[in-house]
Amino acid sequence: MAESMNGLKRTHRCGELSIANAGETVTIMGWVQKNRNKGGLVFIDVRDRSGIIQVVFEEGSTDAALIEKAARLRSEYVIAIAGTVSKRSGAVNENLATGEIEVIPTELRILSEAETPPFPIEENSKTKEELRLKYRYLDLRRPDLQRNLLLRSRVATLTRQFLSEEGFLEIETPILGKSTPEGARDYLVPSRVHPGQFYGLPQSPQLFKQLLMCSGCDRYFQIAKCFRDEDLRADRQPEFTQIDMELSFVDVDDVIDVNERLLAKLFKDVLGVEVALPIPRMTWQEAMDRYGSDKPDTRFGMELTDVTEVVKDCEFVVFKGAIENGGTVRGINAKGQGGMARKKIDKLVDFAKGFGAKGLAYIAIQEDGNVKSSFAKFMTEAQMNALIRAMNGEAGDLLLFAADKNKVVWDVLGSLRLELARQMELLNKDEYKFLWITEFPLLEWSEEQNRYVAMHHPFTMPMEEDLNYLESDPGRVRAKAYDITLNGNEIGGGSVRIFQDDVQERMFEALGFTKEQAQEQFGFLLDAFKYGVPPHAGLAYGLDRLVMLMAKEDSIRDVMAFPKVKDASCLMTAAPNLVDTKQLDELGLALKEEDLV
Amino acid sequence: MAESMNGLKRTHRCGELSIANAGETVTIMGWVQKNRNKGGLVFIDVRDRSGIIQVVFEEGSTDAALIEKAARLRSEYVIAIAGTVSKRSGAVNENLATGEIEVIPTELRILSEAETPPFPIEENSKTKEELRLKYRYLDLRRPDLQRNLLLRSRVATLTRQFLSEEGFLEIETPILGKSTPEGARDYLVPSRVHPGQFYGLPQSPQLFKQLLMCSGCDRYFQIAKCFRDEDLRADRQPEFTQIDMELSFVDVDDVIDVNERLLAKLFKDVLGVEVALPIPRMTWQEAMDRYGSDKPDTRFGMELTDVTEVVKDCEFVVFKGAIENGGTVRGINAKGQGGMARKKIDKLVDFAKGFGAKGLAYIAIQEDGNVKSSFAKFMTEAQMNALIRAMNGEAGDLLLFAADKNKVVWDVLGSLRLELARQMELLNKDEYKFLWITEFPLLEWSEEQNRYVAMHHPFTMPMEEDLNYLESDPGRVRAKAYDITLNGNEIGGGSVRIFQDDVQERMFEALGFTKEQAQEQFGFLLDAFKYGVPPHAGLAYGLDRLVMLMAKEDSIRDVMAFPKVKDASCLMTAAPNLVDTKQLDELGLALKEEDLV
Repeated sequence: MAESMNGLKRTHRCGELSIANAGETVTIMGWVQKNRNKGGLVFIDVRDRSGIIQVVFEEGSTDAALIEKAARLRSEYVIAIAGTVSKRSGAVNENLATGEIEVIPTELRILSEAETPPFPIEENSKTKEELRLKYRYLDLRRPDLQRNLLLRSRVATLTRQFLSEEGFLEIETPILGKSTPEGARDYLVPSRVHPGQFYGLPQSPQLFKQLLMCSGCDRYFQIAKCFRDEDLRADRQPEFTQIDMELSFVDVDDVIDVNERLLAKLFKDVLGVEVALPIPRMTWQEAMDRYGSDKPDTRFGMELTDVTEVVKDCEFVVFKGAIENGGTVRGINAKGQGGMARKKIDKLVDFAKGFGAKGLAYIAIQEDGNVKSSFAKFMTEAQMNALIRAMNGEAGDLLLFAADKNKVVWDVLGSLRLELARQMELLNKDEYKFLWITEFPLLEWSEEQNRYVAMHHPFTMPMEEDLNYLESDPGRVRAKAYDITLNGNEIGGGSVRIFQDDVQERMFEALGFTKEQAQEQFGFLLDAFKYGVPPHAGLAYGLDRLVMLMAKEDSIRDVMAFPKVKDASCLMTAAPNLVDTKQLDELGLALKEEDLV
Repeated sequence: MAESMNGLKRTHRCGELSIANAGETVTIMGWVQKNRNKGGLVFIDVRDRSGIIQVVFEEGSTDAALIEKAARLRSEYVIAIAGTVSKRSGAVNENLATGEIEVIPTELRILSEAETPPFPIEENSKTKEELRLKYRYLDLRRPDLQRNLLLRSRVATLTRQFLSEEGFLEIETPILGKSTPEGARDYLVPSRVHPGQFYGLPQSPQLFKQLLMCSGCDRYFQIAKCFRDEDLRADRQPEFTQIDMELSFVDVDDVIDVNERLLAKLFKDVLGVEVALPIPRMTWQEAMDRYGSDKPDTRFGMELTDVTEVVKDCEFVVFKGAIENGGTVRGINAKGQGGMARKKIDKLVDFAKGFGAKGLAYIAIQEDGNVKSSFAKFMTEAQMNALIRAMNGEAGDLLLFAADKNKVVWDVLGSLRLELARQMELLNKDEYKFLWITEFPLLEWSEEQNRYVAMHHPFTMPMEEDLNYLESDPGRVRAKAYDITLNGNEIGGGSVRIFQDDVQERMFEALGFTKEQAQEQFGFLLDAFKYGVPPHAGLAYGLDRLVMLMAKEDSIRDVMAFPKVKDASCLMTAAPNLVDTKQLDELGLALKEEDLV
C-alpha cells in the first residue's frame, strides 16, 4: 500500500546534499537504488535525478520498526526519508558525489512499491536495446540517459537565450501543412472536413520561414519538429528536431558569424570546450579533393592525393581505363599500416567495393623497404617509384588507390579513410573539429530523374560570378550554400536564398519545372515575392545529431526521450496501431483489401 | 531589377535610431511605407520590424539622380539607404518614435520592387480577415501583428527561462503517437511501413509526461504542439500550443506556487503589470454558486443570489415547478438597468433561452420605485418585497431570475451576467483578475454515454476525504484538480495524478472501463506504475489564449503566425489538398467512392 506524502515536503534533491549540510534536518524523496543489510545496519541508497545518497538505519539508534521497514525495501521502491545529514561514520565513498555524508533517518515512508524491473537501472546498460525501449520509462531512469536529456534541454535553452539576445523571434509554424511532391516522402494527415484531401507534415519550415522574411520579421528561429517518411537508418527518425533560423538583409558572412558564436557558446557553456573562432572554411571542391567528402573529419590527416598525372602513361588497365573515361586515380597513405595482413587488406577491398569501387589497388611498403603491390607487375620501376614519391610513401606505409569517375573515387577513398581511422584509432571523441563547407554545387544531375535536381533546395542563390552558366553549363554553377560540419558529421546547413523573380524563374527552368508546376507547388511563395522581399539567408541544425555528438553517443535514439525503431514503430506505446472503422469512415477512407487481414 | 546589397551592411534597424545618433553615418534597410513629393523634396518613410524612419531627399543637396530614383519608389519596395542621421529640419513628428530625426541619404538601392499590395499595410486593418489570411505574409507586416508575434516570442522565452531556473527540463515528446478512442477526435497519420495502421497526433503530452515522472525526470516542461480534430469555434484551432508541465513529489500547493510566480513574472516583464500574490482561490462549488461559471470573470460583481428559500411558497408555477423538480431559483441584479426598454429585455430572454432557459423572469425597479415585472401577478406584495430585498434591489435596478436544474440556472445566469457586463461596459481590458478554481468534481454524468466520464481525465486524483464515495456516490467526489482563470477565461488547468494502482483501478471502474479496456488503452502507463511511481502533479496552459489576452486581442488567430480558418484549411497555402494516388497506394489506402468527384 502506498503511503501519502502529506505532512512531508522535500527539502533537497539527493545529489544537492554535501558536507556543508551536516547537522541539517532534511527530507529527501527518490528511488531505492540498493538495499544492504550488514551487521545490524541497513544501508539504503536513494536515487533521484541529481544523484544518490546513502541512508543508514542503525540498530539501537534508529527505531526498531523503522529498521524493519527499511529492511523490506526493494529496488525501485519510491520512498521519502526525513532525517539528519551526518558526516559518514564509515569510509568516504569516492565514487559518489555525496560520498562524504549519509542521512540518519527519523522517518521513512513508502510512497510506491515496485516489482523487480526487467533489467537493472544502471549506467552503460548491457540490456538489449529492444527491451529497454519497450520499458523506456525504466530505461530513462539510467543516469547516462538522464544526463543526455539534461544536456539536450540545456542546449535548447542556451540556443534560445542566445538567439533571443541576437534579435531573433521564435515563431511557430504549422505542423498541419501542405504536402508537396518535391523532396522526400511526406507523412500525410487525412482531412475529415475535406474528405479525400490531406495535410502534409513539414519536412522543414523552409517555405514558412522565407514567408516570415517577406513579412518583415527580420530574424526568425524555431526549434522545430520535422518529419520524413523514409526508411530509417541508424541516425534517422521519422520525426526529428531542427534548430531552424532565417535572417533578413544578410549575406553568407553574417549567417556564419552568428552561428559561430552560437556554437562557441554552446560548447563552452555545456561542455567547457573552447571553440577557436573563426571556424575554418573550405570550399566543397577542396573538401572533395582533399578528403573525398563534403563533411570531412579533420581530426586526422590521411588526405587524398590525385596521382592521375603520375600514372597516366602506365600500362595498368584499371588506371588507364579510368583516366580514358574522364576519371581520375587518387590514393591515400595509411601511415604505418604497411605490414597489414593480406586478409585484412582484402577486407578493405571488399569495403571499397561496397562504395562502388570496382577494386582497390595497393602498395604495402614493408619496414625493410620492400614493396608488395597488387599491380606492380603492370608498372615500370620508375613509375612505381614516382607513384610512391607522389604519395609521400615511406617504409611501413600502406598506399591505397581508387580509379574511376571522380564521384566514385571520392566516395570510396573518403569512406576508406574513415574506416582506416577507426581501425587505427585516430578518432578522439574529446576533440571537436568544426569546419564550414562552402560553395556547394547548385545542381546535381539525377540519373534517375534524368534532370538536374537542387543539391540544397530550389530557392538557393547561385553565386553571382556563376550566374551566367545557369543555362549553358548548369553543373558548373556554385551556390551560396554552406554546411557546418563537426568531426565528419554535417550538423547543419543552409544558404542564401534567391529573392529575385527572374533568378528564381531561371532556377526553376534549370530544374525542368514548367511555369505551371512551379506555380502549383510554390505559388504562394512566388506570389509573396511580388510584394517586396528582402535579401535573406538561413541555416538549420539537426538538433538530435548535434546533441548526440556533444553527449558522445553513437545513436540519436540515446538523446531522444521516446524514439522509434527501424520500422518507425514505438515499442513502448505500440504506435502505430489499428483504429476503428468509424474513424476511417469519417475521413472518407478505406483500407485496401490486402491490408484487411 | 533588384539591386544587390553587396558592399552595404545594415548598421541599425529603423526604430533603433534616435537623436543620440545625430551626425552618424548609418545604413538602414526596409520597406517603403510612404513616398511624398513636396516642393522639390522627396520624403520616404522606411519601415522595418522596429519602426519607421523618414529619409529626406532634397533638391540641391542630394544628387539629382538619387532624387529621381527616390521619386520612383512605391509602397512596399524594399530599399537600402546609406546616409547621415540629422535632427529634423521640419517639425518633430510626435506620432513617430524617431520623429525628432531624419536620414539625409548618400545612397539608395532598390533591393526588391513590389506590386501594389491587395490591402494597405497599416494598423487596425479594416480589410476582411479572409483576404488578409490569403496574403498572410503581407498581413503579418502590419505593426499590430508584428507586436503580437514579438509578445508571443517573449512569453515563450520568459516561460522557458523561468521554468529552467526552477529545475524543469524541457523534454520533447512524440508528435507521431498512439491514437486512443477516449476524449476528442484524434488526427490520424497512416503508416506506410504498417499499412492499415495509424499514428495519432497528440491532444496533449499527458501520458508521456506522466511516464517522464516515472522515469525520475522530476520536473518536465514543454511548449508543445497539440492537435484536435474537432469543429472549430472562434478560439479553437486544429493545432494549438500548450505550456505543459509536470512535477514529482508535490501536491496542489506546490504546483500553484510555481505557477503563480511564473504568471507574475510574465505579466510584470511583458506588460509591466503587477500580479498580487497569492492569487485568490475559490472552490468550484463556490464559483458556480456565486458566478454560475467555473471560470468567473471577477472584474465585476453582479453575483448570483439563490432565492429558492424566498420564493418557495409563491404561486408562480415556473419557480414552483423548478423547485419541485429539485432545481433552484437564482437571480442577478443588473444595477442601474431598471429602465431598460422592454425590447431589450426581450432580447435578454432570447439570449437566456439560447443557454437552455425556458424563460427569464424579471423585476425592473423604476427610478421612482415602481416595479415592472413579468411575474408580479403571481406573487403577493410581501413575497415581491422579500424577493427584492433578498436581491438587494434598489431604485433603478433590473433583477433577472432563472429557475431550473442547477446546471441550467448556472449556465443561463453565468452567461447573462457576462452579456450584461458587455452591454454595461464593465469589462476593462487593462485589468487582469486571476483566480484559481479548485476542488472540481472528479466525474460528471454523461447523458450521451449513460455513464460517468472524467471531468479532467482518468488519472486525476480524488480528494482523500471523498475517496470513500467513489463507489457509493461518484458524483459527490471532488478531485485534486485546479484551473487558473483570467478575466473569465480558463488559461490553464491541471491536477494531482493518481499514482496508486488500487485507486487507479477504482477510478477505471467508476468510469465503466473493463480491465481489458483499461489495459488496451493505457496499458503502458499502468505497466509503468508497477515499477515505482512518485506522487506527481501537473498543469498546462493554452499558450494561444494566454497570449491573446495579454495582447488584448479577441481571436487566437491574431496571435498565431499562420492560423487556419473554420473549415481547418489554410487560405494561404491551400492546405489540405489532393495528393497523388501513388502516395495513397503506398499507404494501402483508398478514397471512398463518394469522395472521387
